[in-house]
Amino acid sequence: MRIQIINGPNLNLLGKREPEIYGSQSFDTYFELIKQNYPSLKLDCFQSNVEGELIDKIHEVGFEYDGIVLNAGAYTHTSIAIGDAIKAINIPVVEVHISNVYSREEFRRISHISSSCVGIISGFGMNSYSLAIDAIIEMIDNK
Amino acid sequence: MRIQIINGPNLNLLGKREPEIYGSQSFDTYFELIKQNYPSLKLDCFQSNVEGELIDKIHEVGFEYDGIVLNAGAYTHTSIAIGDAIKAINIPVVEVHISNVYSREEFRRISHISSSCVGIISGFGMNSYSLAIDAIIEMIDNK
Amino acid sequence: MRIQIINGPNLNLLGKREPEIYGSQSFDTYFELIKQNYPSLKLDCFQSNVEGELIDKIHEVGFEYDGIVLNAGAYTHTSIAIGDAIKAINIPVVEVHISNVYSREEFRRISHISSSCVGIISGFGMNSYSLAIDAIIEMIDNK
Amino acid sequence: MRIQIINGPNLNLLGKREPEIYGSQSFDTYFELIKQNYPSLKLDCFQSNVEGELIDKIHEVGFEYDGIVLNAGAYTHTSIAIGDAIKAINIPVVEVHISNVYSREEFRRISHISSSCVGIISGFGMNSYSLAIDAIIEMIDNK
Amino acid sequence: MRIQIINGPNLNLLGKREPEIYGSQSFDTYFELIKQNYPSLKLDCFQSNVEGELIDKIHEVGFEYDGIVLNAGAYTHTSIAIGDAIKAINIPVVEVHISNVYSREEFRRISHISSSCVGIISGFGMNSYSLAIDAIIEMIDNK
Amino acid sequence: MRIQIINGPNLNLLGKREPEIYGSQSFDTYFELIKQNYPSLKLDCFQSNVEGELIDKIHEVGFEYDGIVLNAGAYTHTSIAIGDAIKAINIPVVEVHISNVYSREEFRRISHISSSCVGIISGFGMNSYSLAIDAIIEMIDNK
Amino acid sequence: MRIQIINGPNLNLLGKREPEIYGSQSFDTYFELIKQNYPSLKLDCFQSNVEGELIDKIHEVGFEYDGIVLNAGAYTHTSIAIGDAIKAINIPVVEVHISNVYSREEFRRISHISSSCVGIISGFGMNSYSLAIDAIIEMIDNK
Amino acid sequence: MRIQIINGPNLNLLGKREPEIYGSQSFDTYFELIKQNYPSLKLDCFQSNVEGELIDKIHEVGFEYDGIVLNAGAYTHTSIAIGDAIKAINIPVVEVHISNVYSREEFRRISHISSSCVGIISGFGMNSYSLAIDAIIEMIDNK
Amino acid sequence: MRIQIINGPNLNLLGKREPEIYGSQSFDTYFELIKQNYPSLKLDCFQSNVEGELIDKIHEVGFEYDGIVLNAGAYTHTSIAIGDAIKAINIPVVEVHISNVYSREEFRRISHISSSCVGIISGFGMNSYSLAIDAIIEMIDNK
Amino acid sequence: MRIQIINGPNLNLLGKREPEIYGSQSFDTYFELIKQNYPSLKLDCFQSNVEGELIDKIHEVGFEYDGIVLNAGAYTHTSIAIGDAIKAINIPVVEVHISNVYSREEFRRISHISSSCVGIISGFGMNSYSLAIDAIIEMIDNK
Amino acid sequence: MRIQIINGPNLNLLGKREPEIYGSQSFDTYFELIKQNYPSLKLDCFQSNVEGELIDKIHEVGFEYDGIVLNAGAYTHTSIAIGDAIKAINIPVVEVHISNVYSREEFRRISHISSSCVGIISGFGMNSYSLAIDAIIEMIDNK
Amino acid sequence: MRIQIINGPNLNLLGKREPEIYGSQSFDTYFELIKQNYPSLKLDCFQSNVEGELIDKIHEVGFEYDGIVLNAGAYTHTSIAIGDAIKAINIPVVEVHISNVYSREEFRRISHISSSCVGIISGFGMNSYSLAIDAIIEMIDNK
Repeated sequence: MRIQIINGPNLNLLGKREPEIYGSQSFDTYFELIKQNYPSLKLDCFQSNVEGELIDKIHEVGFEYDGIVLNAGAYTHTSIAIGDAIKAINIPVVEVHISNVYSREEFRRISHISSSCVGIISGFGMNSYSLAIDAIIEMIDNK
Repeated sequence: MRIQIINGPNLNLLGKREPEIYGSQSFDTYFELIKQNYPSLKLDCFQSNVEGELIDKIHEVGFEYDGIVLNAGAYTHTSIAIGDAIKAINIPVVEVHISNVYSREEFRRISHISSSCVGIISGFGMNSYSLAIDAIIEMIDNK
Repeated sequence: MRIQIINGPNLNLLGKREPEIYGSQSFDTYFELIKQNYPSLKLDCFQSNVEGELIDKIHEVGFEYDGIVLNAGAYTHTSIAIGDAIKAINIPVVEVHISNVYSREEFRRISHISSSCVGIISGFGMNSYSLAIDAIIEMIDNK
Repeated sequence: MRIQIINGPNLNLLGKREPEIYGSQSFDTYFELIKQNYPSLKLDCFQSNVEGELIDKIHEVGFEYDGIVLNAGAYTHTSIAIGDAIKAINIPVVEVHISNVYSREEFRRISHISSSCVGIISGFGMNSYSLAIDAIIEMIDNK
Repeated sequence: MRIQIINGPNLNLLGKREPEIYGSQSFDTYFELIKQNYPSLKLDCFQSNVEGELIDKIHEVGFEYDGIVLNAGAYTHTSIAIGDAIKAINIPVVEVHISNVYSREEFRRISHISSSCVGIISGFGMNSYSLAIDAIIEMIDNK
Repeated sequence: MRIQIINGPNLNLLGKREPEIYGSQSFDTYFELIKQNYPSLKLDCFQSNVEGELIDKIHEVGFEYDGIVLNAGAYTHTSIAIGDAIKAINIPVVEVHISNVYSREEFRRISHISSSCVGIISGFGMNSYSLAIDAIIEMIDNK
Repeated sequence: MRIQIINGPNLNLLGKREPEIYGSQSFDTYFELIKQNYPSLKLDCFQSNVEGELIDKIHEVGFEYDGIVLNAGAYTHTSIAIGDAIKAINIPVVEVHISNVYSREEFRRISHISSSCVGIISGFGMNSYSLAIDAIIEMIDNK
Repeated sequence: MRIQIINGPNLNLLGKREPEIYGSQSFDTYFELIKQNYPSLKLDCFQSNVEGELIDKIHEVGFEYDGIVLNAGAYTHTSIAIGDAIKAINIPVVEVHISNVYSREEFRRISHISSSCVGIISGFGMNSYSLAIDAIIEMIDNK
Repeated sequence: MRIQIINGPNLNLLGKREPEIYGSQSFDTYFELIKQNYPSLKLDCFQSNVEGELIDKIHEVGFEYDGIVLNAGAYTHTSIAIGDAIKAINIPVVEVHISNVYSREEFRRISHISSSCVGIISGFGMNSYSLAIDAIIEMIDNK
Repeated sequence: MRIQIINGPNLNLLGKREPEIYGSQSFDTYFELIKQNYPSLKLDCFQSNVEGELIDKIHEVGFEYDGIVLNAGAYTHTSIAIGDAIKAINIPVVEVHISNVYSREEFRRISHISSSCVGIISGFGMNSYSLAIDAIIEMIDNK
Repeated sequence: MRIQIINGPNLNLLGKREPEIYGSQSFDTYFELIKQNYPSLKLDCFQSNVEGELIDKIHEVGFEYDGIVLNAGAYTHTSIAIGDAIKAINIPVVEVHISNVYSREEFRRISHISSSCVGIISGFGMNSYSLAIDAIIEMIDNK
Repeated sequence: MRIQIINGPNLNLLGKREPEIYGSQSFDTYFELIKQNYPSLKLDCFQSNVEGELIDKIHEVGFEYDGIVLNAGAYTHTSIAIGDAIKAINIPVVEVHISNVYSREEFRRISHISSSCVGIISGFGMNSYSLAIDAIIEMIDNK
């Protein structure tokens, strides 16, 4: 089973941005931990600040992998194009957020991506990613 | 560890409503399955169609249990009072939905509950409940 | 043929509230009159000021009766949960109002119930109820 | 007792438009049936696609007949002028719709006509018309 | 003179919720203090988290008491039904709030209750209740 | 100098509609009075309830007369087409209203006609028409 | 007969502001011309850029004069207080504008003054003032 | 193959309105040119300023011709009834505009017609009509 | 203890405006009554129709008195500057209204002042002022 | 004559995405067909999922080619920057869409690109592109 | 070169309001410093809490000085009249704010003044004023 | 001291786009001039039309330089991601615009970037950049 994690804008700064708050652990370190927890999975990770490169990656894996865990960052609230990309592919996409976006600014409640995803997991810190992987595994096992 | 599941309006119809679509499994049957999967947890389940009785239950367990898994059904979109109840108690509440509410009618995007919860899990069918339980366990273990 | 009348909040005050305007006839008295006019029907009547109890009643009769005449009062304009309850059951629901709600305050034009009902009858005083019963009978006869 | 039925735009296509769905019965055929059911009434029927001709007809009968059954079609949602015409005359007007307009597109919820009418009957197919006639008869009998 | 205090959702938690902030005094304790200050008044107090039970109580006292002091809590912002109940009864209702609701979230500025009440007192802590009682006494004395 | 008065929907009912309020004077009678007051003017008057016929008349006189006094009635608030017609012709159009439309319903504040006219006179009863004629005369004399 | 002209903010600049466009005639010069045309009237003129001073003047003349011609300038679109002042006095107020405000920016369509005035005259240059005086004279003569 | 061109309000003024800008060529002259370019087509042209007459024409040809080229002028932005007429017939309708309506006033972006048409061609002057004819021919050839 | 009453626009007309409704008692007369009821207080009263003079007075007393009772009249709904002035000073301000502003026009629900005040008292006629004084006394006594 | 086709996000998936619906023809194959139909034209084609690369291409050809056929995909509804790029160059841009975007979701009606283009062609499948090329040729021939 | 600084409501409190935060330096002290830095400029300073007096000052200097530095305080967000005054004069006006108004409350984003000014400088504390003076000097030197 | 200038979409066209209006000076030429005026500063300049590359550059310098001068062009109004990037870094960012964006189209008033910046300078042509540099220098000197 192959699952692709896709991280959007500013998520490359984890571990560097305000380390006293977010910790000094980068996403790469966290990603190594996840991979150890799911030894039988083929897990890949991709990050870009460019909206179009996120679309390119969705296209690339969307006909070959078994699922996508997508944290589109701020593009969640502005990108219709990413939403269209998700609708165009064949595999389930789970939207994740580290923080609870619904308790932040009003404009973060708007999304053209959520309605294209199978489900949403938001607010559980880094753990949101592994809950999303669990959800995809369960989904595929039930088919 | 004690976790309370609270189900809101119309969720008592699961298994009875359109069984060819939703299956003939009631929430009670599903709840038995969950309990078997978490033998060390004290899991309770409560359902009511009355907004005020959901608030009563939140008050009752909110100073004693370790977490609440809340599917407020349609009250998610209209109840400020339930949101206030969640803010008033001491334990984490995870909002769950069986379907992906963000891919349904526009008015289901409004919520006064989401911003009071620690996180949201939406769209994974009955499995949303056990993902929420996992999230609460993880949250408490990390404290 | 079994038809259930369901009355929502404040409708218990008919006959008591401003009798010089609304008359001193309570809904119970009127209900006796209707029953005489439809001797072959099994007609039941239920009133509650509690949103959740209206939902309970819709669930209770919604798989057994032949139709519901629903005057949800002010919950017409605020309750998504009642709308969901109507969608979940198997029998037709006709929305009625004693006054013409469309000629009153702007906020009374909003409804999450109307779109779930088969039809609407509004503005004909107490007669709105018997027109609704006629409509249900006709509907069933035509099936 | 004289009652005028007034049909607005596109209602002349009944029986011709998608006959496998709407049936091959034109409004004229249906109108003959109604007339037989109310032998003591003087019933007239008028249809036009021109907003101003509907206003002309409302003016013409509005000081002489006993009631109007008005299906203003799409002009229901755009015409302030028809609403003003109804306010200017002396007899009750009942708004009817064949389908339940409140379960269709959002823009069909706006009406400048509803608030000028005594009441509304919507969603009962062709039967909406005879329910409206019943309502007018009852209204006049009670005066 | 008989005055009824009615408290809505979550107000039963006073004294229990965040005692270091709100104090450990419950509303019952405070209510005893008020009664001592108004020895000649018959003062009653009722609390419920259920919207319909608040309406029931308004109906019950609304034709017999001399005034109501109503803190509808979060239902202030969502309940048209409570507003209708106030309009239906014969005695003055004064809306009170412990905090200044106009300095909180935007959605707390919406109210279908305020326009049905004779007046509003908001922001003076527990003292809002006795100011409301003073206002009712003055109102009745001036009649 | 030739001036055309154009009256829109429902204005043909003046003198017939609620005569105890609006008086029993029809617009025709009033028009005779105006003509006597302006003996040197060629004054014409046209009324229609059909939006398109008002446009036809605007086209017809818009390249030949010296000015138009237009009371578009309810079409003032819904017709972009009449506004376009006014922009297309060569002569000044003055918008008039018998009542003060700005003190009536909110939807009567919207106009696609006002911005195409040279000016507006509203609220002076039948006298609005002769003030408009004065304004056109003054305008032409000043050229 | 006594009529007061009241001019609001920036109208003192007429004749000074862009004289090649607006002409070099100040309002004072124009006011002398008006006075000559109405020799039997007592006409007064007042200008201020201070909202409160306009209110003071409305109060001062509002119980003694026969009418007010009010050009509130930009306060037309922002002042509820001037609207309240007009409602509080006993004499008719006619709102005038030199330009057609309805063909300018969108925010100039909002007014809390228009609904308090008997009528509106807008778009006829300086002539708007004398049309307003004519309207007041006619109004008083007809009483 | 039979194609009907339908022109809405104010389009009869082409060639007369501001000839130095729009040219002195009327639509009739242009229509002769089109007919010469498509000798094998049966092309008809109809213009009316009356919304209802446009609907009549759509009904008349909508079950017999092969396509309609519709320039509904300002009714594009206000007419739900024309949109309904297009949905009711059997043949494809192409919406055309001489100017680019999307670069004009904000209110010209609203349309209840566009969603009922197969496609839209806007902004190419008179050439918009022949592009629309080409599109219909291509569409029919591809069936 | 020193308390300043500040009255905004049009409140100087009390006693003069519609005396058969509001009574012939001016605010000055009422103010004498209040002063007698609070012999130990230093009470001052200021009224102006000028927004900026109200701000001046708030500045003047805001660092010296013990509290302000503010009826900002219509400026309540339009003045951000008065709201800023209240935030800048050191003493509590209680907003009062003679009528229940929440049962009047929709635009009177907007306020930039309410959120800067400690509390609001609205709807109790002249008595609103003495309730506000009581509230301030209580507030200071409790410190 | 040189014309550049520019395709935005997700249009690279044509032929791959849901081939049973969209056909197995890629845009490249279709592009070869177009080139054969216009042998005398220099036609180029560019696709990118990156908003900024679309802008780069517009800049590159916008001072050298004769026209652009632009299908900006979902960026049509979110990109002000592309709209600015079109305004900055010297050659005409025609906006095309394969489907009729006006009959899809509400948010696809918003565009900051349409107003910068000379015209729009939407809804004719792949044929939209060749209609756009025809329109550009005609436009240049008429200069 | 003569430049006028104009300060609006509440800016007179600088140095007095919360000195531990804003410092104990009044604007007058700061103004002395600026004058020393620009010895060759004639610099004047004016403050008022009255909207109309700010307009008076703009009129007074607007035809004689070389530029205005305007901090309209809260009137920035409510005054159309000040915006009109700026448009009426001959000299450039630069809008300044001490804090970054765009990071404060939502209602501070609305301005009818910004569009009348040549430019805006916001967020640089007292230094905003001298940056504005630099901008005016540069602007005049470049003419 | 190191300051980075970052220019967003379409700003690379300066000097090429409409040279008769904007002049034939490119930003590079202007940048050379600035560098000469600030010989002691290390000034860098970066331009991209790609939103994500602007974010990359903000990340790159945001932990090393002393300040950023950002002209995000049209992304100012659509990019939440750039706003998030500014919040994530350690150094002050000043937003600049060549033209006064507040006097242009309504949609240019929306910004998710302004609230993340320390301040804004808009409307002073190329000089906006050097005013921003002055502001940063002053800011750092005052620390």
